[in-house]
Amino acid sequence: MTEPKHIVIIGMGLIGGSLAWQLKEKGLAKKITGVDSNALHAEKAMELGLADDMLPLEQAVPQADVILLAIPVDSMMNLLPGILNQAERQIVIDMGSTKANLAERVRQHPQRGRYVAAHPMWGTEYSGPEAAVKGAFEQKAVVICDAEDSDADAVEWTRKMFRAIGMHLMEMSAADHDLHAAYVSHISHITSFALANTVLEKEKEDNAIFEMASAGFESTVRLAKSNPAMWVPILMQNRENVLDVLNEHISQLRKFKSCLEKENYEYLRELMEGANRIKQIIK
Amino acid sequence: MTEPKHIVIIGMGLIGGSLAWQLKEKGLAKKITGVDSNALHAEKAMELGLADDMLPLEQAVPQADVILLAIPVDSMMNLLPGILNQAERQIVIDMGSTKANLAERVRQHPQRGRYVAAHPMWGTEYSGPEAAVKGAFEQKAVVICDAEDSDADAVEWTRKMFRAIGMHLMEMSAADHDLHAAYVSHISHITSFALANTVLEKEKEDNAIFEMASAGFESTVRLAKSNPAMWVPILMQNRENVLDVLNEHISQLRKFKSCLEKENYEYLRELMEGANRIKQIIK
Repeated sequence: MTEPKHIVIIGMGLIGGSLAWQLKEKGLAKKITGVDSNALHAEKAMELGLADDMLPLEQAVPQADVILLAIPVDSMMNLLPGILNQAERQIVIDMGSTKANLAERVRQHPQRGRYVAAHPMWGTEYSGPEAAVKGAFEQKAVVICDAEDSDADAVEWTRKMFRAIGMHLMEMSAADHDLHAAYVSHISHITSFALANTVLEKEKEDNAIFEMASAGFESTVRLAKSNPAMWVPILMQNRENVLDVLNEHISQLRKFKSCLEKENYEYLRELMEGANRIKQIIK
Repeated sequence: MTEPKHIVIIGMGLIGGSLAWQLKEKGLAKKITGVDSNALHAEKAMELGLADDMLPLEQAVPQADVILLAIPVDSMMNLLPGILNQAERQIVIDMGSTKANLAERVRQHPQRGRYVAAHPMWGTEYSGPEAAVKGAFEQKAVVICDAEDSDADAVEWTRKMFRAIGMHLMEMSAADHDLHAAYVSHISHITSFALANTVLEKEKEDNAIFEMASAGFESTVRLAKSNPAMWVPILMQNRENVLDVLNEHISQLRKFKSCLEKENYEYLRELMEGANRIKQIIK
């Protein structure tokens, strides 16, 4: 395994905190320095033992061998160029949920090679350091994007790190990533937020009714608890893909609506049978 | 606890099978006779020990003290009147997901009092006797509808049965039940079916992409595995309520669409914050 490193994690929330635990456990980090602009989160991260110390960004970066960015994608857009300015030898890896705009942002950066674009496909609807989970990422996929634009040593270490924490690697372009992420992640969040609003709107006078809600409802609506500070920027950054998928989803819902309006139960059955094919894909 | 009974369960699938296990375990049934029109299901139910014997409907009903109906709601509409014809002393309880049409169907039946309308708020996306789960229903809600239309002894035994298997009781009219069920159950199934179709439509050339799908996607799409033989009749029976909710849901999705089209990220954040209120309701 690769030599342990001094790793700086920017953003000690759900993703940064969970990574910190895994990196320590797998011996990938000799020292972890956390950076968090939220003082309460910084304190909590120390309390939970997620980091060996917490430092301001400008002090932390020069000490690092590896810098991991686990912050909302809009903050990533703001911070990444400045961090790359300081990164002559460091490896800088982002964990963001959208990739194309960020890739474009640093495409011409003289230190572009030190940066590796990655998206570990794991998360929960919770946020902050208390939300960090031990053993997260195990047996999940991680997407590395535009690997050819990164220096070979940086990509190689990144691959080893993700493999060491139990992830299986996928590689594709940032553009392909964003398109697929719209389908297998971003749209799920929108449907869940919208479903919560649908039900809250209607049932506002009668909270007791939620006693009737069972596991099926909970599972379709749980992503509606997700943090807007993370999700507004994701949908902003992936706006065009998300709009395409959302339009497609609304037209799929309209098919169900039309079946019910016309009492066309044969077609309704066909729509459900079509959807049942998801069994072959999601165990 | 009430005297054990000879209980006939019509439909030995997910619900009937899970009930059989609970009724035996809690000592509520001295004998369980299963009825299932699907010969393979009947055989499987015996193999799994869900029933003491399996009989044709017309032989089973006269022997029963209690008859539980756990079949699709369209079959319920067909069978319930005939079963009530034979039920002078029996208690007949249905477990269906829609209530108003069925209540209307037997409203004038001379044996209406022997029938109790119930909906245990538990299920999974799987079906058939193999899908039966031990300990199902524990700490879930069950709705008893129009209790005033049932004989007092029938309702009392029904309440005791559901309490004995760990459920908490809710009581309301069949009309109220159907309205609320549209919001906290039926719409979740439609969104999930439609989401599966959205993604399957797009990603049909590239199954590999589902490797990217994480727990969030799985949780919003898992209900899309549900059995059309069960769900087409539910949506048929609750057509008007479901259409109202579906229209509301599409208009909530359009708000997200409009935010993205107009790049109104402030309103997008408000929509998400609104949806976050679901935290107060779903733990």
